[in-house]
Amino acid sequence: VTYWRLVLAWEGTHFHGWQLQPGVRTIQMEVEGALSKLLNQGRVRVVASGRTDSGVHARQQFVSFSTTQTRTPDSIVSGLNHFLPEDVVCLAAHPAPDGFDARHSTRRKCYQYRILARPIRCPNRRNFAWHIRKKLDIPRMSDAIQVFVGTHDFRSFQASGCSATNSVRTLKSARLEQHQDEVHLYFIGNGFLRYQVRNMVGTLVEIGLDKRDPDELSRILAARDRTKAGMTAPAHGLWLDWVEYLEGENEKGD
Amino acid sequence: VTYWRLVLAWEGTHFHGWQLQPGVRTIQMEVEGALSKLLNQGRVRVVASGRTDSGVHARQQFVSFSTTQTRTPDSIVSGLNHFLPEDVVCLAAHPAPDGFDARHSTRRKCYQYRILARPIRCPNRRNFAWHIRKKLDIPRMSDAIQVFVGTHDFRSFQASGCSATNSVRTLKSARLEQHQDEVHLYFIGNGFLRYQVRNMVGTLVEIGLDKRDPDELSRILAARDRTKAGMTAPAHGLWLDWVEYLEGENEKGD
Repeated sequence: VTYWRLVLAWEGTHFHGWQLQPGVRTIQMEVEGALSKLLNQGRVRVVASGRTDSGVHARQQFVSFSTTQTRTPDSIVSGLNHFLPEDVVCLAAHPAPDGFDARHSTRRKCYQYRILARPIRCPNRRNFAWHIRKKLDIPRMSDAIQVFVGTHDFRSFQASGCSATNSVRTLKSARLEQHQDEVHLYFIGNGFLRYQVRNMVGTLVEIGLDKRDPDELSRILAARDRTKAGMTAPAHGLWLDWVEYLEGENEKGD
Repeated sequence: VTYWRLVLAWEGTHFHGWQLQPGVRTIQMEVEGALSKLLNQGRVRVVASGRTDSGVHARQQFVSFSTTQTRTPDSIVSGLNHFLPEDVVCLAAHPAPDGFDARHSTRRKCYQYRILARPIRCPNRRNFAWHIRKKLDIPRMSDAIQVFVGTHDFRSFQASGCSATNSVRTLKSARLEQHQDEVHLYFIGNGFLRYQVRNMVGTLVEIGLDKRDPDELSRILAARDRTKAGMTAPAHGLWLDWVEYLEGENEKGD
């Protein structure tokens, strides 16, 4: 049996997220389907470094699988891309150590959140950035985002339905960049709770719109109560930007 | 009667081009429909600075119309955007001189052609750039593009079915820029023949792929024969970047 690590990218617009679910189109379904055609065998199970929700995009996601067949990296990449639909792609395939599992080998990942900050919407970016019409106070948001950095109980920013046993996570860095009419927020951490990034972004936007005071953030964290934080930012602005491995390998996608 | 100049932008992916045609979805149809709802009257005729084909995008296109109603620019912009679908937007509305017609008042326009130059496709750019897998000789293309600059009979680069009486056009400038994995070609001129940009790009790509010698270009121009030039580049890489007016006004879209 040989183990493989795939590097994938996708546009999330027409997917119901990563995870296999009956009756809907998911990325896992397409990748397993393409692998099963490529290897000409039954279901091939793949494991991702983490799940992503409906509408969320990925520039670089790692996925592991194993097979008893002997293949070259090039034949896996070109074969998979032959069978994959146009909104998901395999960027690379690397042989991995025995027993390799993408979920447990992830060291860090970076999420990017794109905001289109201008009065009028943009047709060709409608699925790729959250459009905010009103003026955002960028320095205020840029200061506030730093409150999230460090090890915190992020329960207030966890999806309301979700109850992870442990909601303590370490955010290694967070930053804001402005590029013309877009604001890009980057969050790097070892792991994220469900909706954590989108809830942090929604709260930061409320701060940028002067609907909420930046001082509230530490009180919201301390409250460990989802109802204290702001709105959930829409999925279509969220990008899984890159994932870093225990081995220290890292490729940049897109 | 007051005359207006609208600034529009759209993603061309799901449109059969600009021009009204029975049974298909066109940008003109959507804009006239939205204006007719906004002004609450029958058909409102609009004139664009030029037609664009199926799949071609626009960051900034000028469109003129007239009405007997009194409106403010802001109410036209917000009203139109309320009625327009998500893949077309009105960026601005300006009062125009009496008898103003967007078609006859265009001084210059700039087309951008985006090429994704890397071995593997990119899901979220699949509708916005032409994917070329093989390595392109960029300096060679950058030199060759200059041959097009000036006043020439572009008959060899005109759509084969089309027979404009006069196929002489002036290309004021042409340039190539590289941005990471993309190559952007810009063409500025007072007017373009149907498929002219896409046929010039297709021929330049054949030069970049070493399938054709750069010296051929002047012979192709002189031949005035469509069969001498290269392939037609696909529509989805083409962007109407900006349009300039006789009045010298110019706004940058997107």
